[in-house]
Amino acid sequence: MLPSTTRSLVTTLYDDARMVVELADLPLPAPGPDEVVVQVEAAPINPSDLGLMFGPALTAQASYEEGRVSAPVPPAAMKALANRIGQQLGIGNEGAGLVVAAGSGAQALVGRRVAAFAGAMYSQYRVIPAAGCMVLPEGVSAREGAAAFVNPLTALGFIETMRADGMSAMVHTAAASNLGQMLVKLCRADGIPLVNIVRSPDQVALLRSIGARHVLDSTSPAFPDELAQALSETGARVVFDAIGGGPLLGTILTTMEKVANADGAYSRYGSTQAKRGYVYGALDMAPITLPRTLGFVWDVSGWLLAPMMERLGPEARARMHGRVATELTTTFACHYKGELSLADALSREAVEDYTRRATGSKFLILPSAPL
Amino acid sequence: MLPSTTRSLVTTLYDDARMVVELADLPLPAPGPDEVVVQVEAAPINPSDLGLMFGPALTAQASYEEGRVSAPVPPAAMKALANRIGQQLGIGNEGAGLVVAAGSGAQALVGRRVAAFAGAMYSQYRVIPAAGCMVLPEGVSAREGAAAFVNPLTALGFIETMRADGMSAMVHTAAASNLGQMLVKLCRADGIPLVNIVRSPDQVALLRSIGARHVLDSTSPAFPDELAQALSETGARVVFDAIGGGPLLGTILTTMEKVANADGAYSRYGSTQAKRGYVYGALDMAPITLPRTLGFVWDVSGWLLAPMMERLGPEARARMHGRVATELTTTFACHYKGELSLADALSREAVEDYTRRATGSKFLILPSAPL
Repeated sequence: MLPSTTRSLVTTLYDDARMVVELADLPLPAPGPDEVVVQVEAAPINPSDLGLMFGPALTAQASYEEGRVSAPVPPAAMKALANRIGQQLGIGNEGAGLVVAAGSGAQALVGRRVAAFAGAMYSQYRVIPAAGCMVLPEGVSAREGAAAFVNPLTALGFIETMRADGMSAMVHTAAASNLGQMLVKLCRADGIPLVNIVRSPDQVALLRSIGARHVLDSTSPAFPDELAQALSETGARVVFDAIGGGPLLGTILTTMEKVANADGAYSRYGSTQAKRGYVYGALDMAPITLPRTLGFVWDVSGWLLAPMMERLGPEARARMHGRVATELTTTFACHYKGELSLADALSREAVEDYTRRATGSKFLILPSAPL
Repeated sequence: MLPSTTRSLVTTLYDDARMVVELADLPLPAPGPDEVVVQVEAAPINPSDLGLMFGPALTAQASYEEGRVSAPVPPAAMKALANRIGQQLGIGNEGAGLVVAAGSGAQALVGRRVAAFAGAMYSQYRVIPAAGCMVLPEGVSAREGAAAFVNPLTALGFIETMRADGMSAMVHTAAASNLGQMLVKLCRADGIPLVNIVRSPDQVALLRSIGARHVLDSTSPAFPDELAQALSETGARVVFDAIGGGPLLGTILTTMEKVANADGAYSRYGSTQAKRGYVYGALDMAPITLPRTLGFVWDVSGWLLAPMMERLGPEARARMHGRVATELTTTFACHYKGELSLADALSREAVEDYTRRATGSKFLILPSAPL
């Protein structure tokens, strides 16, 4: 017998500029004919989850009580959030667990372990459409399948996007992330030259240890020359950028332009080679700045998984999902700093750790673990 | 009989960081079988011509002698110009004149008045491919046909680009320019809602006088609200930006995002409406800055006439050229502040006037006028 409510983590922005993240018991409806009830066993905390969970709230000034964290939102940030004031929102884009009940049309899934990208996965139970479930291969645990969507599809999406642009090599920033490590493995397997840009010597060592060939530390004085060299060697003219703000993206694109011009005749309009930047993250919320030494043949775009998957079409999507399923425990294996129950996730220690958004501080929430 | 040399304006950057613009007598070769010799009667000074002619040189510090201007280039700007050091380059993208001689395959053009987009048009005579000539309609003068390419095709190219993006309304900055006035007339004729952004009340009045409906002064305190209102009314989600540097482009795109979000439910990724910015000019050489309140569904690109014409394909190109020819003296009529002989163009008074790049200070060079 299923319970009538489910314990969940929810986030609410109040009009007095408090962001409250708390435990709530939400009604658990019966599944419709094509729906399943998943007992969620594991769900990762991705940067995109933090964007909803705490948004721009100042977690360093948060106050903590049993099952509840409250953090102030700076007045300047309230305007952009007007549409969410007063709404209690579930958190957790993706996760995995056991199908414990199903509607009449989805009985075959009962007892199977599935992954889903359904939102509000930081819940003991979630009712979701059967069509949105990825059945995990035999022997793959919920922990291993928890992050089967966001990072794997983003990494594969970069490759599909690069190919759709007619390019054959790429640059990636903040490349020591879990996503970045996947991309190193994928590009190696597919023979795609990849220029990894990281922010410390430790991260250089980490990526080299998993077989990355071009790894540049943007804090090194040699970075500008090394970047030009790597762009010249690989021919990479597309960059996937997790950072967005600050000078790095502009530096990469203008270096592409410089390399493209190096052997050409003078043109007042710059190189005719296409140069593309995709901003897929917001590790730095400062404005993106693009120097005018870019020439005129360049494109910079926001990159977001869901619309990109739409644009790539059903065939590419099926290919991507299939590859994720077969390589979940190898290429797409994810490393966590720790595991948290729903209640643990509201402790000061945990919040301060996972909101740092630093490489190597990724956590897994276990929503069905005892509170 | 043709002369063996032709008087021309040329520009040379020397490695001691002097930009020298001067008169030179260049050899005039005999035309090949498919070439014509044009006696150039009129050629406009477009902003793109100034980019080659003086580039980043400090014309306020120029020294003048007979038939020669020399202006210093700031050291920081020299690096980007390394490829042109020591090269004597012809100036003048476009112009019009009389065909005075032709090769065996192009005799039919002798005696016709043509416009061409051939470069180095600030010359008494130019040898160019017959295929690159647009024969001017009967009764159209060289003065009227001198600017038949850059501005008309750019204005038509904006409309083609907008349509290729699936959009039906647009924003234009620095909209009081000659190009902007053409765009006002074209958009009115084609029923395309156009939001014009200018920088003074005089420019507002000018555009209103030729029938523009949405004209906003970005220096007005009411600008942010007026912009949101105009974007909301027109649905414009694409901007063609002549300025590039500074905050205006980012302001327009973030206002598009704000308007797109106004009625929607909260989404942490922002609006799903496409928002596009095309940077086609560089009136401000400061970096382009894009605030992160843009959401993730946006594209900003360089826009350059020649590659855009290539991309649009032969059918669109033929349609554009045809329209230019028939509307040269109406829609595409161009207004000049004055006319200059080749020698006049090197006077202090003229250089200081046309290098201001200000709306209303556009000049026409008459290369065949007596020196």
